[in-house]
Amino acid sequence: MLNFHPNVTQPSQAALERALLLLHRALGPSKVLSARESCEVYSHDDSEAEGRMPDAVVLASSAEDIATTLRIAEETAVPVTPRGGGTGRVGGAVPSAGGIVLSTLGMKQVKEIDRRELLAVVEPGLVLADLHAAVEAEGLFYPPDANSLLACAIGGNVATNARGPRAFKYGVTRNYVLGVEATLIGGRSFFAGRRTTKGVTGYDVTSLLVGSEGTLAVFGDITLRLIAKPESVMTLMALFPNIQASCRAVESIIVMGLVPRCIELLDHGTLEAVRRAGNALNAQAGAMLLMEVDGPGLEVERQAARVGELCDEAGALEVLVAQDAGQRDRLWAARREMSPAVRRMAKHKLSEDVVVPRGKIAELLLRVARTGERLQLRNVTYGHAGDGNLHVNFLWDDESEVPRVEQGIEQLFRDVVELRGTLSGEHGVGLMKAPYLHLEQSETLIELQRGLKNVFDPHQLLNPGKIFSADRSHGAC
Amino acid sequence: MLNFHPNVTQPSQAALERALLLLHRALGPSKVLSARESCEVYSHDDSEAEGRMPDAVVLASSAEDIATTLRIAEETAVPVTPRGGGTGRVGGAVPSAGGIVLSTLGMKQVKEIDRRELLAVVEPGLVLADLHAAVEAEGLFYPPDANSLLACAIGGNVATNARGPRAFKYGVTRNYVLGVEATLIGGRSFFAGRRTTKGVTGYDVTSLLVGSEGTLAVFGDITLRLIAKPESVMTLMALFPNIQASCRAVESIIVMGLVPRCIELLDHGTLEAVRRAGNALNAQAGAMLLMEVDGPGLEVERQAARVGELCDEAGALEVLVAQDAGQRDRLWAARREMSPAVRRMAKHKLSEDVVVPRGKIAELLLRVARTGERLQLRNVTYGHAGDGNLHVNFLWDDESEVPRVEQGIEQLFRDVVELRGTLSGEHGVGLMKAPYLHLEQSETLIELQRGLKNVFDPHQLLNPGKIFSADRSHGAC
Repeated sequence: MLNFHPNVTQPSQAALERALLLLHRALGPSKVLSARESCEVYSHDDSEAEGRMPDAVVLASSAEDIATTLRIAEETAVPVTPRGGGTGRVGGAVPSAGGIVLSTLGMKQVKEIDRRELLAVVEPGLVLADLHAAVEAEGLFYPPDANSLLACAIGGNVATNARGPRAFKYGVTRNYVLGVEATLIGGRSFFAGRRTTKGVTGYDVTSLLVGSEGTLAVFGDITLRLIAKPESVMTLMALFPNIQASCRAVESIIVMGLVPRCIELLDHGTLEAVRRAGNALNAQAGAMLLMEVDGPGLEVERQAARVGELCDEAGALEVLVAQDAGQRDRLWAARREMSPAVRRMAKHKLSEDVVVPRGKIAELLLRVARTGERLQLRNVTYGHAGDGNLHVNFLWDDESEVPRVEQGIEQLFRDVVELRGTLSGEHGVGLMKAPYLHLEQSETLIELQRGLKNVFDPHQLLNPGKIFSADRSHGAC
Repeated sequence: MLNFHPNVTQPSQAALERALLLLHRALGPSKVLSARESCEVYSHDDSEAEGRMPDAVVLASSAEDIATTLRIAEETAVPVTPRGGGTGRVGGAVPSAGGIVLSTLGMKQVKEIDRRELLAVVEPGLVLADLHAAVEAEGLFYPPDANSLLACAIGGNVATNARGPRAFKYGVTRNYVLGVEATLIGGRSFFAGRRTTKGVTGYDVTSLLVGSEGTLAVFGDITLRLIAKPESVMTLMALFPNIQASCRAVESIIVMGLVPRCIELLDHGTLEAVRRAGNALNAQAGAMLLMEVDGPGLEVERQAARVGELCDEAGALEVLVAQDAGQRDRLWAARREMSPAVRRMAKHKLSEDVVVPRGKIAELLLRVARTGERLQLRNVTYGHAGDGNLHVNFLWDDESEVPRVEQGIEQLFRDVVELRGTLSGEHGVGLMKAPYLHLEQSETLIELQRGLKNVFDPHQLLNPGKIFSADRSHGAC
């Protein structure tokens, strides 16, 4: 664990007691947790960031509950940390100042799916996989597919502008949010956006809310754009002797105008972890691409064949095409096993989620390897090669290695910025990348963003310490 | 002409003289116009809004010129109206307070087209058709295709989040802007966004700038996402006895999961105008759909055939499929002739650009017909049916009709909001829709947007009177 103690003001004991009293009175005891053992799970998310214990957890079941909580929070000056599925990787849902955690995970209703208007209206606590199932049952498709889809909630997806493998073809959550009910600190609610795909009245407040990591407003009903479900999908796996060859294949696929819905890359170290987990992969393979092509049946076959040829031309050792669902599942096995397999390689793992222009993937991996050698730091990388989005994992067993991990992270970020990339492709800034934001963004841009934050939350009560916090102290693991 | 005199503060004569002196000194006489005859063209755009004569026009040829102008404007407290191609339809480029018009139309360079990264970096004055030509020469594609593409500039496209017929399949300008160099009033510049398609560091300032109608910052270099050029395109025209039948066709095309890149609708009155312009159309036809399907060759043929069948099933009188470029051109003739043909029907024409859920198109047209009868107001409608985006044109010859036109507009907007649509699909708010914004948006949302404006432009010097102006007085036509 890494401790992040951003420079946030903690509420006074009197304020907390008053907030708790008012919350109990307004919402009843079943919706307000305050016992340490029930609050504990809300003190962290799926990141290495350690937060503070929340003083109260509100389990909202309606828009009114959200508004009531945000009204009481403002009245008592107690900070609020909104929370969805708690699957975030950068501490975005960690209550860095204690106070109230506001969970919307209990609001799971699919309120509307409209085949004619190609939209859905859903509550923020709906789990992504359940959204997928509901819309696919109607012959429709919601493309974003964060890897945590079995646990992450759509509200959190919107808060982080979540994405996943299919983003290469289909884009990200922001591209699918038509409108959102939002409640400000203080309890005022408003609807931003619209139900139509087009619309240009005023500023795009909806896009500003998407990806704002719970720092501007708390989401209620979310109106999502849907598309037609693709007729058919084909999965291909290609093994290459090294990263360079796999990058050549990605490049020619893109330059030829082909658009697989995903192009996943696994590096040498990741393949080694997968092999150790019992998956018998070609021993010569130093890189893998796992790809999916979707669309109308015949066209999918044609595209898959072309993708396979381009992999061959780039020097693939072998290319496998799944002929049925069982084979498809086996091809994805390596990808699925990857994360737990990597986790088993060391006591601690920190996965950084960087993006570089896709022509710079090989260069970045070379630099990471050099940093690893210099700092004696184990690392493996996998990611979404179509978007240049790589998860660079640093591994360590002993506390004494932490300073080197920190150096490795900073070197990685500096390399990414130098290669004209960005610090986060899909996890966000949260607590953990806040100290590094200035590496990528200018003072002017950061100052403007602080100004935007102040418009929505002038007293810094909503998810304090996130995105912009500059303070960081390193703790034990 | 309709006069819009929003409640904006005009600069003092002394301030104007000082600004002019400083601009001349800093930029030289060739870049600063102040003679009435050279400024006149910058007092209006392609809308019915009449503005004030600018006191100076700066013809910027570099980012430095933009920064210098915005520095001097802040120093002297003289308002600035940024301007691209001047093709806007709601008075967004009209200098409502006089002052300085800042034209970036001279900055036309294509700085970079990268086939591997699928991006282009261009200056803001580049004309949209020239951008299309440049990227298509590289086998790439920039989908947004505003109808004014021969004259509109990409900077204005970004400022208005411009779109066009192809938006149904490909989305709008915002979906293609990766990053933008922007300069604030006062002259400070910053880069928002990135060069990679993914990235979630901080708030989406880029999306906020896109569609901000020149009220937040002035754009320099723009980084655009490109896609592969579609292999092939097919054009179909279907004639229907009435709007209802054409709407049934649109609905079944969408419900069947087909995605033509455009579905253009022409109503009875529009077809009548086109007939009068000499285009021999089936006399029974009361509605037309003009559609394009694109993608890989075989798939396009299959989709076009299916679209044609669905039109037949919905009751089409005839369906024509273009077999070559010449035929394709002839099918588009009606659409091309439409706007001038409608213009010839009366001395004055005001085209409102509303959106309703696509299932409500027929209902809206029925309401518009009723309003027309009640107010004795001629009207014709065409638009992008796939998106529910309709251009409702009110026609009149005599000044005495203006109060009825105004009533017609307000009734239209009320109907649109009641049908859960939006006041503008692609033209924006500018001067002309500012008085109606409150019909669609809540006070809370408008207040938040004013707050965002203040972060970027606390002294209200950048494009004053746009989007939020509440004052309106009606003038002569």
